Amino acid sequence: MSRVKVAVNGYGVIGKRVVDAVRKQDDLELVGVADIVTDYRIKTAAILGIPVFAAAPEKATEMRSAGIPVAGTVDELLSRVDVAVDCTPKKIAAGNKARYEKAGIKAIFQGGEAHALTGHSFVAQANYETALGRSMTRIVSCNTTSIVRTLTALKKAGLLKRARGTLIRRASDPWESHLDGILNTVVPEKVIPSHQGPDARTVDPDLDVVTIAVKAPENISHLHTWWVELTRSSTKEEVLAAFRAAPRIAFVRMEEGVTAINSTKELMSDLGRSRADLYEVGLWEDVLTVERNEVYYTYQVDNQAIVIPETIDAIRALAGIEKDAMKSIEKTDRALGVVKEFLQIEKEKAEAA
Amino acid sequence: MSRVKVAVNGYGVIGKRVVDAVRKQDDLELVGVADIVTDYRIKTAAILGIPVFAAAPEKATEMRSAGIPVAGTVDELLSRVDVAVDCTPKKIAAGNKARYEKAGIKAIFQGGEAHALTGHSFVAQANYETALGRSMTRIVSCNTTSIVRTLTALKKAGLLKRARGTLIRRASDPWESHLDGILNTVVPEKVIPSHQGPDARTVDPDLDVVTIAVKAPENISHLHTWWVELTRSSTKEEVLAAFRAAPRIAFVRMEEGVTAINSTKELMSDLGRSRADLYEVGLWEDVLTVERNEVYYTYQVDNQAIVIPETIDAIRALAGIEKDAMKSIEKTDRALGVVKEFLQIEKEKAEAA
Amino acid sequence: MSRVKVAVNGYGVIGKRVVDAVRKQDDLELVGVADIVTDYRIKTAAILGIPVFAAAPEKATEMRSAGIPVAGTVDELLSRVDVAVDCTPKKIAAGNKARYEKAGIKAIFQGGEAHALTGHSFVAQANYETALGRSMTRIVSCNTTSIVRTLTALKKAGLLKRARGTLIRRASDPWESHLDGILNTVVPEKVIPSHQGPDARTVDPDLDVVTIAVKAPENISHLHTWWVELTRSSTKEEVLAAFRAAPRIAFVRMEEGVTAINSTKELMSDLGRSRADLYEVGLWEDVLTVERNEVYYTYQVDNQAIVIPETIDAIRALAGIEKDAMKSIEKTDRALGVVKEFLQIEKEKAEAA
Amino acid sequence: MSRVKVAVNGYGVIGKRVVDAVRKQDDLELVGVADIVTDYRIKTAAILGIPVFAAAPEKATEMRSAGIPVAGTVDELLSRVDVAVDCTPKKIAAGNKARYEKAGIKAIFQGGEAHALTGHSFVAQANYETALGRSMTRIVSCNTTSIVRTLTALKKAGLLKRARGTLIRRASDPWESHLDGILNTVVPEKVIPSHQGPDARTVDPDLDVVTIAVKAPENISHLHTWWVELTRSSTKEEVLAAFRAAPRIAFVRMEEGVTAINSTKELMSDLGRSRADLYEVGLWEDVLTVERNEVYYTYQVDNQAIVIPETIDAIRALAGIEKDAMKSIEKTDRALGVVKEFLQIEKEKAEAA
Repeated sequence: MSRVKVAVNGYGVIGKRVVDAVRKQDDLELVGVADIVTDYRIKTAAILGIPVFAAAPEKATEMRSAGIPVAGTVDELLSRVDVAVDCTPKKIAAGNKARYEKAGIKAIFQGGEAHALTGHSFVAQANYETALGRSMTRIVSCNTTSIVRTLTALKKAGLLKRARGTLIRRASDPWESHLDGILNTVVPEKVIPSHQGPDARTVDPDLDVVTIAVKAPENISHLHTWWVELTRSSTKEEVLAAFRAAPRIAFVRMEEGVTAINSTKELMSDLGRSRADLYEVGLWEDVLTVERNEVYYTYQVDNQAIVIPETIDAIRALAGIEKDAMKSIEKTDRALGVVKEFLQIEKEKAEAA
Repeated sequence: MSRVKVAVNGYGVIGKRVVDAVRKQDDLELVGVADIVTDYRIKTAAILGIPVFAAAPEKATEMRSAGIPVAGTVDELLSRVDVAVDCTPKKIAAGNKARYEKAGIKAIFQGGEAHALTGHSFVAQANYETALGRSMTRIVSCNTTSIVRTLTALKKAGLLKRARGTLIRRASDPWESHLDGILNTVVPEKVIPSHQGPDARTVDPDLDVVTIAVKAPENISHLHTWWVELTRSSTKEEVLAAFRAAPRIAFVRMEEGVTAINSTKELMSDLGRSRADLYEVGLWEDVLTVERNEVYYTYQVDNQAIVIPETIDAIRALAGIEKDAMKSIEKTDRALGVVKEFLQIEKEKAEAA
Repeated sequence: MSRVKVAVNGYGVIGKRVVDAVRKQDDLELVGVADIVTDYRIKTAAILGIPVFAAAPEKATEMRSAGIPVAGTVDELLSRVDVAVDCTPKKIAAGNKARYEKAGIKAIFQGGEAHALTGHSFVAQANYETALGRSMTRIVSCNTTSIVRTLTALKKAGLLKRARGTLIRRASDPWESHLDGILNTVVPEKVIPSHQGPDARTVDPDLDVVTIAVKAPENISHLHTWWVELTRSSTKEEVLAAFRAAPRIAFVRMEEGVTAINSTKELMSDLGRSRADLYEVGLWEDVLTVERNEVYYTYQVDNQAIVIPETIDAIRALAGIEKDAMKSIEKTDRALGVVKEFLQIEKEKAEAA
Repeated sequence: MSRVKVAVNGYGVIGKRVVDAVRKQDDLELVGVADIVTDYRIKTAAILGIPVFAAAPEKATEMRSAGIPVAGTVDELLSRVDVAVDCTPKKIAAGNKARYEKAGIKAIFQGGEAHALTGHSFVAQANYETALGRSMTRIVSCNTTSIVRTLTALKKAGLLKRARGTLIRRASDPWESHLDGILNTVVPEKVIPSHQGPDARTVDPDLDVVTIAVKAPENISHLHTWWVELTRSSTKEEVLAAFRAAPRIAFVRMEEGVTAINSTKELMSDLGRSRADLYEVGLWEDVLTVERNEVYYTYQVDNQAIVIPETIDAIRALAGIEKDAMKSIEKTDRALGVVKEFLQIEKEKAEAA
């Protein structure tokens, strides 16, 4: 079977990770990336051998002057692919919709865009099937992805009544932290509920979820604290089992020295993960507490990485090359090294010692 | 009537603020402070004309060598006062109890100590009367003080069912931030519930309150986010009225430019507050949201300052010079400039313009 | 003698401190401040009883709607004063020059403006006399002020040959640190030399000084490290004596526990300084090292406060009410509490103990 | 030829990078690592298939209980190797010397140790030859390594007279930033000169270099600013050529968007570098300024990575398998991907576009 041809429009924080991930899938083929910048960011794409296209025709000359080999325009790129993944900034992305339609290709947008843009919002384990054959979908934002993953897990176990969470958000991404940060403060969002609750309901309208968001002076990742009311009295074991049964939620543990969000990133780095990316919801197993029908827990959301596996699944769903959600999820996760346990030492290695 | 004579043991973050506050009360007299350090911190006390005593006899010589005028030992200080306010570090404080008992004086401890040390934990508006005439009490910690203030307000209005909060804690105090801080991370506490819920019940055993705590990389103050279930459907107006009726809760507003915890501190500084201290729970009025029987809100806790008014009230309660909680609270608040509205422009000033 | 009437245009970080400082001088009278904001910042001026004027006529209504008593327009304010201190943002200030000229009053600009705007740049101890009777001057920026103060001290002692410094700059001011900061990084300036060396030569063209600047993720203050080549071999004592002889340089000491820039701010707060302001160059006496004809030292520059005393002196110089630089400096310093030694315990207090 | 057998004692920030680097050399063989911890850090070694030994015999049981496959004790490990690389913490390392001597093997220590421990301090390009056949050497610290690299480059070009630098040091390493950091401050070192100047002279006694060090609130890397007096008037081109001719100094450029120390790390990550490591001195080419016989420049030192290539070279030098410094350096650099230009797009890739 021929591979699905993919273009990535925008080689930023998400775009470059989608590129890496597409290149690791045996049923997808990266045809190229489009961007408008002329600095180190896009040069590294060229160094890595990725065909670079000019996202705006008038930028092509500028990019070539900067020494970047430009393979053509974005429209030329789009004419050669089956699916475009739009990873351009917030205000640009919506404007690209017509371009994808004109090219007659499928398109995936990221969580900065409104649900209305595509009429479909995507989290693989929750609604993969409804995206099959669609022309467009939107991967919900990092925080919303984590919410849908965890609450769907509790829902499938018949445990979920309502969820109230606080989101401690990172203030900027590492690459831009000298341009756009906050210093020695915490910034509460002006409106409660923050947008993630309603956003989660674009994927699953039944979720009773309310969030409060604040911004903290760090660029590592988000951290969530949750209070969830269960449908009945439960136990820690039962709740953990529900999370363990769901994909892309992996446990970390204080007792293993993973005691803060920087520990988790060091762990990803130590495991050899590309860019130290944490694709999973990193949930503290030994912090989670159940009291009768109430459960409290804390988890980490790597805003740069968590939506990458969802994006790969969405490509398959739109292209229609895999009908079964779990098969796509497993395929993606194997290629990216997504796990359920970070610190599982394989038996043969243990025995060899 | 003669003034109540007060000693402050420990001239640190809390101790120096208690000293300032005692000196502003017309019914209290600061006799002196005791400490063991020899550096700039205690020298400023001498410069301000505060009698300094050596908290350990063997330290007196060292302190004098450093140019600090030492008026005597801590036991000499205690022999001249009615009440000691213990502001020494956590592990030292409990050991001082015998010293105060031997001196036959009343003693106030801070929130780092266990409830069992004194058998009584104090928040002025909740249980002033039960401290009257006691020999000892403990001011609960900054976070717990804020919890008792706000939940008591809702309880008195007949609205409180249960409260679930997330505490985003400052990582260190400004003076020590070069010695003991965290960098570019968020650190969840290892145990849920964190200690503040149980601690609040040492003041009011009826409170149904659970907290999750995390530490953020800043030294400004704590920030709390709360979900409170009410006894019945309510309105924003009713909930605000409940908070407005209680002492030491003051509203801040996003629409007035107070959009983060550093804004509030700048506001305190602009208002001429000593050390830019925020004695009140600084609650965002325009962020607070009520949905049926659920209320969500966010407030700021200045961990260096919030317990100062409570400490002054506790002195009066132990000394028995004021039987009425509200009268003590009002007296303290007037002397310290505690307000209900930070940005109230007086009528005559407005008219003069 | 009647007092010099002063207007402060712009009630921001510098403006509000100039207001405080003017109100502490017995030969100056604050007539009012002008601004265009409607939030907590200007409201505190009204609360403190300072007449507020609308810096733009069309803003007056908006300000009144926000509850701010507006006493008139900025032009009305200017018509009532002898000297205007312009503390508006960088791009606005130059545009105000015509306004002051039209009002026929003297004007002082801040260091964000170019030397050419006024043709005169001011540091009290270096060139007070040349500002006498002028219609305009510019207070050089915080870093430049510190450079001129310290290098003038060495020059007057006949010791200065050339100076090479590194400026570690604070990234934003505390009030705005949730809007404009940097996170977990250090940002070198794109050009060496940074502008402070040339800027210092607008005050004293003879200074051989080159600076390299970087931005650090903090909002406390700037820190400078210096290598200065002396005209001859010298000693630590001689260099310290040169600094001690100059105004507005005060020593701090590691051995007194002042071990970082946050310690110094805590010290200012402990001494009761308004806004914890450090008006002096805070130079570490026990870190300064002399090796033959080379001296190395480190000092702290409080960017929010250091130019305030210079601004007061500049008012006197332009108004011509004091011909003698040192007399103005002493008068200003007494009113503001500027010292040469922060930790000097007065004799009578020491003896009283 | 059989490969040199290597043990790494201590699997921390440096140790794990040495392990990665040794495994990339075709003339070296990693036999195992020793450590005493039981948490995620050492578990990842086991997951990566690295034989783990207990650095203290009594720890073996504890480690096995935590699920870590322990292959033996550190002494068993040492009995199987030719060279040990000691990467244990400061106070532990010196105590290991006897252990290596007893095992009759060569040993390499890191820069936290004193020069006297080994009698030889190592920077590959400066003194590789003097380490040939020695039983022990010490890799100088990260900052000192960068100083020797850059000043040796200028010296070899006949340009170096004297160098005066300011070191803005990172406050902690990312993995430990929740345990040991600083907050919103800058901390000057108590003594000038800081230790790096004298330390550089343990490698090259002729260097006239003095450094001032301060600590900044970030965990990315160090940044140096330098003033160097040259032996004669020179040009920017000549100075750049001197740096270009030396190994392990690579240029970054503001104009390519590398505008702060976080940009450089993102660039390393984008280039696919393991752990985003910067092995080179990252020197800003377009910031460097020459004025007659003075040159000013700024560079970045990745304290976690810069000594890794030196350590590999030192293994070869002690083992005596390569007599020529430049051959070892080139071999190491090829294996690790060390470059002179980060953003060089290969010709065939450019043409393919």
